[in-house]
Amino acid sequence: MKHIMARKKKRIMSKYVIGIDFGTLSGRSVLINVENGNEIATDVLDYPHGVIDSELPGGIKLGVDWALQHPDDYILVLKKTIPAILSMSGVKADDVIGVGIDFTACTVLPVKRDGSPLCKISEFSKEPNAWIKLWKHHAAQPEANKLNEIAEKQGQKFLRRYGGKISSEWMVPKIWQTFNEAPCVYQAADRFIEAADWVIWQLTGVERRNTCTAGYKAIWHKHDGYPDKDFFASLNPALRDLVSSKLSTDLYPVGTKAGEISAAAAKLTGLKEGTAVAVANVDAHVSVPAVGITGPGKMLMIMGTSTCHMVLGENEKTVPGMCGVVEDGIIEGYFGYEAGQSCVGDHFQWFVEKATPPEYFNEAKKRGLDIHQIFTEKAEQLKPGESGLLALDWWNGNRSVLVDVDLTGMILGMTLSTKPEEIYLALIESTAYGTRMIIDTFHENGVPVNELYAAGGIAEKNPFIMQLYADITNREIRISGSPQAPALGSAMFGAVAASSERGGYDNIVDAARVMGKVKDIVYKPSPDKVKIYNSLYKEYKILHDYFGRGDNDVMKRLKKIKKEVK
Amino acid sequence: MKHIMARKKKRIMSKYVIGIDFGTLSGRSVLINVENGNEIATDVLDYPHGVIDSELPGGIKLGVDWALQHPDDYILVLKKTIPAILSMSGVKADDVIGVGIDFTACTVLPVKRDGSPLCKISEFSKEPNAWIKLWKHHAAQPEANKLNEIAEKQGQKFLRRYGGKISSEWMVPKIWQTFNEAPCVYQAADRFIEAADWVIWQLTGVERRNTCTAGYKAIWHKHDGYPDKDFFASLNPALRDLVSSKLSTDLYPVGTKAGEISAAAAKLTGLKEGTAVAVANVDAHVSVPAVGITGPGKMLMIMGTSTCHMVLGENEKTVPGMCGVVEDGIIEGYFGYEAGQSCVGDHFQWFVEKATPPEYFNEAKKRGLDIHQIFTEKAEQLKPGESGLLALDWWNGNRSVLVDVDLTGMILGMTLSTKPEEIYLALIESTAYGTRMIIDTFHENGVPVNELYAAGGIAEKNPFIMQLYADITNREIRISGSPQAPALGSAMFGAVAASSERGGYDNIVDAARVMGKVKDIVYKPSPDKVKIYNSLYKEYKILHDYFGRGDNDVMKRLKKIKKEVK
Repeated sequence: MKHIMARKKKRIMSKYVIGIDFGTLSGRSVLINVENGNEIATDVLDYPHGVIDSELPGGIKLGVDWALQHPDDYILVLKKTIPAILSMSGVKADDVIGVGIDFTACTVLPVKRDGSPLCKISEFSKEPNAWIKLWKHHAAQPEANKLNEIAEKQGQKFLRRYGGKISSEWMVPKIWQTFNEAPCVYQAADRFIEAADWVIWQLTGVERRNTCTAGYKAIWHKHDGYPDKDFFASLNPALRDLVSSKLSTDLYPVGTKAGEISAAAAKLTGLKEGTAVAVANVDAHVSVPAVGITGPGKMLMIMGTSTCHMVLGENEKTVPGMCGVVEDGIIEGYFGYEAGQSCVGDHFQWFVEKATPPEYFNEAKKRGLDIHQIFTEKAEQLKPGESGLLALDWWNGNRSVLVDVDLTGMILGMTLSTKPEEIYLALIESTAYGTRMIIDTFHENGVPVNELYAAGGIAEKNPFIMQLYADITNREIRISGSPQAPALGSAMFGAVAASSERGGYDNIVDAARVMGKVKDIVYKPSPDKVKIYNSLYKEYKILHDYFGRGDNDVMKRLKKIKKEVK
Repeated sequence: MKHIMARKKKRIMSKYVIGIDFGTLSGRSVLINVENGNEIATDVLDYPHGVIDSELPGGIKLGVDWALQHPDDYILVLKKTIPAILSMSGVKADDVIGVGIDFTACTVLPVKRDGSPLCKISEFSKEPNAWIKLWKHHAAQPEANKLNEIAEKQGQKFLRRYGGKISSEWMVPKIWQTFNEAPCVYQAADRFIEAADWVIWQLTGVERRNTCTAGYKAIWHKHDGYPDKDFFASLNPALRDLVSSKLSTDLYPVGTKAGEISAAAAKLTGLKEGTAVAVANVDAHVSVPAVGITGPGKMLMIMGTSTCHMVLGENEKTVPGMCGVVEDGIIEGYFGYEAGQSCVGDHFQWFVEKATPPEYFNEAKKRGLDIHQIFTEKAEQLKPGESGLLALDWWNGNRSVLVDVDLTGMILGMTLSTKPEEIYLALIESTAYGTRMIIDTFHENGVPVNELYAAGGIAEKNPFIMQLYADITNREIRISGSPQAPALGSAMFGAVAASSERGGYDNIVDAARVMGKVKDIVYKPSPDKVKIYNSLYKEYKILHDYFGRGDNDVMKRLKKIKKEVK
């Protein structure tokens, strides 16, 4: 009886935070105990409209490389999953002290001054450019190319902060595409806003944008701000006032409070009006404190279909091929660096779908295992170098350090005895070499990387790959304690928004100390394997530079021929 | 009635020749009408012992890379298939005027002075080196390496006739291996002889060796003879008299008569004693007149698991990477050049076995088609260059023009959208680029190649590949009229051995004019495709030279690491 009382008492005293992770295909709310970071309840909603990449809900066909989303899907995530986790946990809205969200980025939409999305206004609903352009919308490539050409010609120094190139996935090319293709939408839009910031607006009733997406995706800099008017005018004279008329310079760093749950949002979500809401964050970046990283030297790799690498530095350095460096972009007081590999899990999946013989599937079926488990088992039997194979991991171009989407995959060393599991292993190894190339580049350019942390599906599920990465990078690897690192990180920022006054924390470092989590296991490099992989990596590097740095642009010429004959 | 009479009369007047093709797994006799080259009857016998590559008939285990045969299998081919074709055709032995044979080479055995194979003498039957070493026996590689090293150091000019290297498949390394591993066999052997010449010996009762195998496989030259005694002594002093004590300088060019069917052979085969027998020939070389080639400018490609290229020249030229040049080696009066690609059909088979997803097999099964037909259908839909892929066809090393077994395969240009049929096509294209490299090298080194002829399984069965080869080489291709070109060629040489006096021909040119055959179809290069393939070939060439000529020896270094870790 006493025992139950004690538990009850403890339960009554606990405070909770909610992290909401808006992914590519679904949104997930997680309820977390603010005192220890433990997950109490989770609910996921698949977006009813998913990724809109062939036609608009109204039936309008989309072009190649388009990827849109529907704003109602995000609202539905709030409406369904928050009440669900409260209900399944029995936690009362009174005990939820803060909310944080993270999002894919750059995922951007045009809205009216009151926040209403243009795509929901009937006169624009049939215009693709009025919809939310998802991060992986690639149809603004012509605009990105043009922008890079102009910026390079002008010697714009912002280019250096982004590995020399602005991605077609980012804010300005996406807006410029709208301007070019649908001037009426551009005119009618009072703002272009990250979906992340738009959702915060829906929760709090106020537009309060974050510096993380602005810095990484919209060419904003803490001291220099956005590129100047002349630059935008050089894209097109009518874009001169893009920043003042369509964006905002009123930006808040991650770790600050965006506002509080509004009456309307309280009604929508079942949360209490006045609950603290953190400024929005990006899924990858928000995961950094979730594994307990709050200072330099430790790189987090989010490993899924692609890999995103984040590390903190003490100074602003120019690191070749980095995707971005933003002051306070991840943790206040540090420069947050980001790099990426565009094809990791996707790579292994391609192999399984496009190059795996039937007997491997038969074995998987017979033994009730996933095909990747079958390959992993077989690959584990191979010694480093035994296959004689070496691959370049560019099936989806190279994001870092070469920043070149026109590079393509390569594999060599095949003989008539080469087996599928050897190719599978070579593809995994190639992604690890790619990671090492990124690490070495940071390390050699004044941003030390001494230890690795990993989160995401691969880190969670594949110890073999993690050990291989430790051997190839010659660094220890720790794994996120939570399989839902982004939601945990978002919840931590929710706790910071609440502040210690309301039972949260005053800064993310304090929050990370208590709520951040890694698993007990540490993957340590095995010296024997490190030695062989050092030799193999040397070969990778030679080929990387030969095909990637202009000695032989065969990959680009083949792409050109491919385009011409198609 | 008159009509039947006429046919009977014609039948009575007809003369026939027999060609016997000794392949890797079977022997085939073909009965051919000497007046028109038409095939009357065929019989095939699979060798009961096949390729002996794991253990001797007595149970002795063989090492890696061994490949032996049993002499009884060859005798059985004579005993079974010759009577069979006579019986099934109703042709009388009286009307068979000549016999010719062709063989794989170098396929070599040690025999006593009377021709009895050492492996059939009980004291040697358990010694692997006493058996017939088949062409693809590769266990003499250490001896070949050593021989090449010594010959190169001494500046032996014979090396130039063989692309700079003597193959481990050839006569001297194979004999040297016997000397090193089984000195008693070497001592006991009165001769080392090509199986081709040994079979002729069994048919005629006399040892009469041919210059074709001597020239292509035993470093013999019409004017210079074999390498001198000092050279053999530099391999090992005890080998000084190898030629005089174990080989023979009594050699006969192809197109001459070896002798006549002996009484014993008549009993064995049902042929008439005294029937003319041609000197032995090699399967690939004997096919040249079978498609009607008797002069320069026309290259024959025998396309199967690998491809063998043969072309005649007016002079002795040094062509980089040729496998051999032998005066009178193919057609008397010309220099016969040979080159080769070690991985053609094998390449496509590897892909089908090791890299083809289940749905392709399912489709093949459902539609009752061969898997290669499925791929061919899909590949036919692709335009040149559309896949963006480019491969180096070195899955089994490079025989010509680089002569380097340590080179390995490469493919580049893959993206996440790359489909299996695109890879399949890229592998086929790579073998065609390899062929073009060989053609260009001959052409540029004074041995013109203006037209192509093809024989073998691929030429016979795959019009798509043949058209592709025409487009990539920018040359017309004609196809062997007989699916059994080697046997037809052998029969033609049988007709020449008989001479016009006995109803045959006085030389192979006359025989080829009447009996040589090509199909009606001519594969003509399509100018549009030639243009694109010229661009792609340029890329192939750059990579060929980069990986093959020492710019980046990564393939060799990876092979070295592979050996070390194994």
